[in-house]
Amino acid sequence: MSQTGNSSKFLIRQKRLSVSQKAAGLDALAVNPGPTLFYLTGLNFHLSERPVVVLFNTSQPPVIVLPELETAKLRGLPYPIQAFEYGEDPDTWASVFKQAAVASNLQGKKVGVEPRRLRVLELHLLEAAAPDAKFLSAEDSLASLRMYKDADEISALRKAAQIAQNALLATIPMIKVGVTERAIASELTIQLLRNGSDPEMPFSPIVSGGPNSANPHAMPSDRPLQPGDLLVIDWGASFKGYFSDITRTFAIGPVEEEFKKIYRLVQEANAAGRAACKPENLAQEVDQAARSVIEAGGYGKEFRHRTGHGLGLETHEEPYMRAGNLVPLSPGMTFTVEPGIYLLERGGVRIEDDMVITASGAESLTDLPREMQILG
Amino acid sequence: MSQTGNSSKFLIRQKRLSVSQKAAGLDALAVNPGPTLFYLTGLNFHLSERPVVVLFNTSQPPVIVLPELETAKLRGLPYPIQAFEYGEDPDTWASVFKQAAVASNLQGKKVGVEPRRLRVLELHLLEAAAPDAKFLSAEDSLASLRMYKDADEISALRKAAQIAQNALLATIPMIKVGVTERAIASELTIQLLRNGSDPEMPFSPIVSGGPNSANPHAMPSDRPLQPGDLLVIDWGASFKGYFSDITRTFAIGPVEEEFKKIYRLVQEANAAGRAACKPENLAQEVDQAARSVIEAGGYGKEFRHRTGHGLGLETHEEPYMRAGNLVPLSPGMTFTVEPGIYLLERGGVRIEDDMVITASGAESLTDLPREMQILG
Repeated sequence: MSQTGNSSKFLIRQKRLSVSQKAAGLDALAVNPGPTLFYLTGLNFHLSERPVVVLFNTSQPPVIVLPELETAKLRGLPYPIQAFEYGEDPDTWASVFKQAAVASNLQGKKVGVEPRRLRVLELHLLEAAAPDAKFLSAEDSLASLRMYKDADEISALRKAAQIAQNALLATIPMIKVGVTERAIASELTIQLLRNGSDPEMPFSPIVSGGPNSANPHAMPSDRPLQPGDLLVIDWGASFKGYFSDITRTFAIGPVEEEFKKIYRLVQEANAAGRAACKPENLAQEVDQAARSVIEAGGYGKEFRHRTGHGLGLETHEEPYMRAGNLVPLSPGMTFTVEPGIYLLERGGVRIEDDMVITASGAESLTDLPREMQILG
Repeated sequence: MSQTGNSSKFLIRQKRLSVSQKAAGLDALAVNPGPTLFYLTGLNFHLSERPVVVLFNTSQPPVIVLPELETAKLRGLPYPIQAFEYGEDPDTWASVFKQAAVASNLQGKKVGVEPRRLRVLELHLLEAAAPDAKFLSAEDSLASLRMYKDADEISALRKAAQIAQNALLATIPMIKVGVTERAIASELTIQLLRNGSDPEMPFSPIVSGGPNSANPHAMPSDRPLQPGDLLVIDWGASFKGYFSDITRTFAIGPVEEEFKKIYRLVQEANAAGRAACKPENLAQEVDQAARSVIEAGGYGKEFRHRTGHGLGLETHEEPYMRAGNLVPLSPGMTFTVEPGIYLLERGGVRIEDDMVITASGAESLTDLPREMQILG
């Protein structure tokens, strides 16, 4: 990911940030490494034991606290930034954070933070550096920025979807009875890289066969595939920091009748969910559309999660397709539709596509066959 | 990673935890997904937008708060655990956390947390669930448990080192003038998987050539290797959750005299650092041993980071090899020795090995040649 590419992009986002922060009643924002920092600055740090925080305060250029050995990342940035650096002794962090808080004029301010990203480590340093400041969730105002993807972002998401699809197609020939989940996950990861995924992937592929497929978040095990298994593969690629997240379910040889039945239901639910993706529908209507198919089929209890989640610089982000989410779908929103049915100890089915809302409806960035394919 | 393997292992660790917590003046511990949770329970969750917390209170079995769709992970656990589950509506989290806090008897207690792991999300839910509890850092008492590796842990670390070394050896033939950093990083990642690394790797390989090698934390770029470059490769594998972390530096064809000079100094510093690894030396003496070689050579300012960090279920953990760290080295401690010299805009050298302290001295788990190798 180039840190310098489009200079105006980050300045525009920083300007939009100050508008959305003001609307949310916040004076400033404190962000640690992660997708929001990358979105606003192009800066890419690993989250480590050394705290990095960027402070945005409307009235001035951003301020960054970082380890000395990371300062090379600031060279050539296409916008001004004021840096406060510390060395290898954690006892020096507090005073450097204090200087940064003063420079950023945080005292007495309402400072937005990301509760899902900021750690107690950074929170305590910030609280000590600006004891009169109030630290509040900026989740909603940040989501309102990042939820609407521009053309460049959508094109990166499209490419991430294509890479993932090609990687699966290259992996399918090895899938047969006797092969372990772990071996398939490893080959799929290799194919993701060979097909152009960034090395920092959204998540390690989920490859779960037989009874394991009834666990939506199973980790690949050493269990070899057996005839009659359902096989759930949930995988994604990364391109320029943007992620894909796809699921397809396969049959290993002929499977029992109930597996075919739940497969058909999930396939219909996926289609109904995708059909509900259009501007002015609410997020919860996508959930409802998919869920009602499965409930009508008698498996409502076995569909044990929301229908989908936003997708972008994070694998899971706003908007979430779940009951109670009244966010209206709008052009540029990208999210998954992934209904599933899970029969405990026996097997599960999930079919997941990546959708983008357009002016007139929606497009699926993923188009691998959704019919049941028999492998092995 | 098997969640059931050795039942007694986790019970023993949980018992040791309660001793070390008591010594630290803590009544309980609240842990979210990550290496400490895995160490104490064998449970492996991804950190996600859905909070998961396990509460340990000496007097009773652990209590876990988790999403309904993750409960399959609790089946077959070889020790008792009390679970509190929530559904897909975040508005329900607070009451479920409250129930868990009551069950775990947190009120008025001193509750240890990990500042580098726990997020504001979980902290705020815990604070609301147990408003009279005090949440304090448990970092030191947890480090005092996890720092001393047993034979199984060391054998996993040894295997992780071997996998990483074999992966690099398989990648070296492709390294030549004109190949990009990104292509090398991708091939190395593929070779890590082919050689048996778990898919969840410690970090994406750092492959930095020419001027990029002067940035210790550079991300692989599209820059093709050029004659006269230094090439820093910093990579690691994962085995059963345990990590390796190695660095070697190569010359792309003949390099300028000063590069040879700093290479020799770093090689000597690495040897001096490793020689200082023995029981009863302090952590800072390893740093000092390596650093004094580089300072005597006139490049003290260009060695811009500590000499090493602990290695285990985390890439960076206690003990840190840095000035001021008075921890005495003891058998079972595992950490890196990785001095470096970085000439800004020109090139850098780093040589990193993974050490384990033994009863009589230390062993390097890594043994790839440390002499300058010319490639390309």
